[in-house]
Amino acid sequence: MSQGDAELPATPKLRATRLRLHTQHQAVVIMRTDCHVCRSEGLASRSQVLVSSGGREVQATLFQIEGDDLLAIDQIALTETTWKILSLDEDAAVTVTHAPTLESLASVRRRIYGNRLDAHAVGSIVRDVAARRYTDVHLAAFLTASAALPLDEQETIDLTGAMVDVGERLHWDSPIVLDKHCIGGLPGNRTTPIVVAIVAACGLVIPKTSSRAITSPAGTADTMETLAPVDLDIATLRRVVEAEGGCIAWGGAMHLSPADDIFVRIERELDVDTEGQLIASVLSKKIAAGSTHVVIDIPVGATAKVRGEASARHLAERISAVAARFGLSATCLLTDGSQPVGRGIGPALEALDVLAVLRSAPDAPDDLRRRAAALAGAALEIGGKAAKGEGAAAALATLADGRAWRKFQAICAAQGGMRTPPRASHIHPLIAPRAGRIVHINNRKLARLAKLAGAPEAKAAGVYLNVSLGQEIDKAEALLDIHAESAGELAYALEYARRSPDIIEVELSS
Amino acid sequence: MSQGDAELPATPKLRATRLRLHTQHQAVVIMRTDCHVCRSEGLASRSQVLVSSGGREVQATLFQIEGDDLLAIDQIALTETTWKILSLDEDAAVTVTHAPTLESLASVRRRIYGNRLDAHAVGSIVRDVAARRYTDVHLAAFLTASAALPLDEQETIDLTGAMVDVGERLHWDSPIVLDKHCIGGLPGNRTTPIVVAIVAACGLVIPKTSSRAITSPAGTADTMETLAPVDLDIATLRRVVEAEGGCIAWGGAMHLSPADDIFVRIERELDVDTEGQLIASVLSKKIAAGSTHVVIDIPVGATAKVRGEASARHLAERISAVAARFGLSATCLLTDGSQPVGRGIGPALEALDVLAVLRSAPDAPDDLRRRAAALAGAALEIGGKAAKGEGAAAALATLADGRAWRKFQAICAAQGGMRTPPRASHIHPLIAPRAGRIVHINNRKLARLAKLAGAPEAKAAGVYLNVSLGQEIDKAEALLDIHAESAGELAYALEYARRSPDIIEVELSS
Repeated sequence: MSQGDAELPATPKLRATRLRLHTQHQAVVIMRTDCHVCRSEGLASRSQVLVSSGGREVQATLFQIEGDDLLAIDQIALTETTWKILSLDEDAAVTVTHAPTLESLASVRRRIYGNRLDAHAVGSIVRDVAARRYTDVHLAAFLTASAALPLDEQETIDLTGAMVDVGERLHWDSPIVLDKHCIGGLPGNRTTPIVVAIVAACGLVIPKTSSRAITSPAGTADTMETLAPVDLDIATLRRVVEAEGGCIAWGGAMHLSPADDIFVRIERELDVDTEGQLIASVLSKKIAAGSTHVVIDIPVGATAKVRGEASARHLAERISAVAARFGLSATCLLTDGSQPVGRGIGPALEALDVLAVLRSAPDAPDDLRRRAAALAGAALEIGGKAAKGEGAAAALATLADGRAWRKFQAICAAQGGMRTPPRASHIHPLIAPRAGRIVHINNRKLARLAKLAGAPEAKAAGVYLNVSLGQEIDKAEALLDIHAESAGELAYALEYARRSPDIIEVELSS
Repeated sequence: MSQGDAELPATPKLRATRLRLHTQHQAVVIMRTDCHVCRSEGLASRSQVLVSSGGREVQATLFQIEGDDLLAIDQIALTETTWKILSLDEDAAVTVTHAPTLESLASVRRRIYGNRLDAHAVGSIVRDVAARRYTDVHLAAFLTASAALPLDEQETIDLTGAMVDVGERLHWDSPIVLDKHCIGGLPGNRTTPIVVAIVAACGLVIPKTSSRAITSPAGTADTMETLAPVDLDIATLRRVVEAEGGCIAWGGAMHLSPADDIFVRIERELDVDTEGQLIASVLSKKIAAGSTHVVIDIPVGATAKVRGEASARHLAERISAVAARFGLSATCLLTDGSQPVGRGIGPALEALDVLAVLRSAPDAPDDLRRRAAALAGAALEIGGKAAKGEGAAAALATLADGRAWRKFQAICAAQGGMRTPPRASHIHPLIAPRAGRIVHINNRKLARLAKLAGAPEAKAAGVYLNVSLGQEIDKAEALLDIHAESAGELAYALEYARRSPDIIEVELSS
């Protein structure tokens, strides 16, 4: 089909202005309904547009505004996400056109209808996601489709590889580079800072990058941030690890697997976690971080993320198989997921538990100490610092003699200086309804309680447990304390607790 | 679990200001990061908030802004969607709190994981959707889940009923209330205005409400809007139908099945249409409109929406079964879907075809005349205005003697006055690459071409076909003309045409 000559549109330019409007991952720009670009391009509200300036470009959702209160007719307002991607100066000239058709959305549609995707299709999707070309609707559709028909092993491998390919990748000189991860679902259980301190104190290399919470009241990065800066760039992370052997940094700041950071926000909004996405998320970060060996904690319990031993073993096998395809050796430990580990749930409250264990404080939670020692012990055995079966004991010794605590302080100093975790302004106890024995703790509801209290956004917020399974308690004793940074959040959490008598169940003693 | 006394937060009030920002269905409000409500409530960007004033409330996504250029510390800016729902005055006091947890999202999650939903669960989802409590992420997840595991008959019935229940419902005195619908997928095929004119001219009642385009270059409402106002409220629609027996109105303006209007926007963004959603969408509108009998056109063709006769029969059976559960009788006609019907594709270009048929113009597209007569004929037989097998002939007679044209003019006048469809400012031919015979027309690519040219938002935009299947054509003759309202859109359409030599295939004549 030939077309003869068509008049081409003049390049549609506008002056950029920074709005300092925070829209999170959603890239948004605002233009006048009556501006020449909207009219000549036929743009409407919620059109997807391509905004370009100085060789950079970003795809964004257009909102249109009427009248000249906010914008002159030749101005475009950029929200923080778009402003930073384009690195603009005020009044810079930007070009706005219709966003090009995303060919990869055809693959998303095929996946919705139950067709498996090959590496090429998955790669195209992930590249468009990382370039922020997908809207929330597109992202949610892809994640939902890969939950409805779960990703198979090959798709998980392809997704993992594609997520590594679109980000930065670290390389280390050491033949063994250790890493550690917990599958999650268990409130508290903040072993990572302790494990890194022990492993690094024993002379091994463990450049740990962690995520923020997806659906939990705190991620390791959220907790660690109350103790030291975690937004390290790659050069800083390298300097910390070269000096101290280990670090505990937020992975998102260094663009390891950037597509994951976008997927994670949508998963949080949906409150959906799927095996394939979980594996790709975890392993893409580890591979990108240059790890050779990773120890993975899989807590198993009725209200943990993994509920039975069979599914835990399946997950462990799938993780090991996918990891092996990238030359990464994964050691999975199935652990007790019947109740929280440690007493704090929420960033700062978990940090206090970590400090207590590292300092060998008399009231340090022993379950957290033992869990961290088991995981660190596996790493010490892999790294040749302990004989087979003797790793946990070696780890406990490193805690007991203060080496781990000194190493942790050195790491915090190297990351930018140790901090004191904040304390909540509103603390309120939940009182036992009767005297008796603690027979059940619902991890999911406990996590929800901590989140309603404000965790993880409110660092000091969360729940501090006073009881554990099997313990005897008197009437009018506090089962737990709710910590909140605002009266509103405290009220929400208390309202939820009032409606949920089964968060912690107390049975009359016989 | 008891809780003792908790201090309750003071009601968090702000002054409302109207931003005149258009965000389509996405309800958005903007607040200062440092305002007392954000701080006391622990709100962050993209928090879901509940905004209340004067007994009305709306759930919205919060974007936060820094600095005092746009807002004073005690102000909240509302986008048009939120402003109109709350019916506010400038500086009205509004309350902002965390949005409550949506219990129905648990059902969405269960559906993602492959569990069927019961009527109660579907009802809860649809009520939250209609109340605009779902974010784009939630909406896309629900629609994707019901595409990945298609809705079964019971779920489709439950969804249809739930969608009727959340909207207005019309009642008519007539024992037979006719309706008409086309499943779509065929560009052009704008029979509805013709069918309504014929059926009403014969003395039957046909209060037709139509939708705007989902994924096509024009919906009936888009086309009809170029001929007369279609945004009728229920009182006006009733007056038009009582006077003339029929109308062609946009359904969205009268809140029949309002959840459908929200689903449709997301389906458009995903470019996904599923059987269950399709049936619920069509039938909920018909049931809400008070119809007793509906004639449904199912075009079948390799590049139409329904590609084979078997799936067309399955769809027809499913439609009839679901309709019957609501006391609605559905008559499905399987029609030729191998090529467009009529010559125009796009709102105004289709309107010109409609006018030509109604006026019995010499160059009126005969395929459109015959298709409309077949559908109107089925309605005339149902309504007892023609004997079995003689409906189409009776319909053609109504066109030939001018009764249908006079009725159509009367309906347009009653709806607010007849209009002349706009003409495009940019028209460009696509020239045949060689002399020969037209052997294939790709409906999907033709529709895409019309959309890239600006349809349906640009009313005059689209494609005007000069050829049909089997026709002989000379080299350098125009296969079609592209109509656009802007040079940019014309350029996009031409660029697509250049990349797609198979939109219309010409074979050398033997």
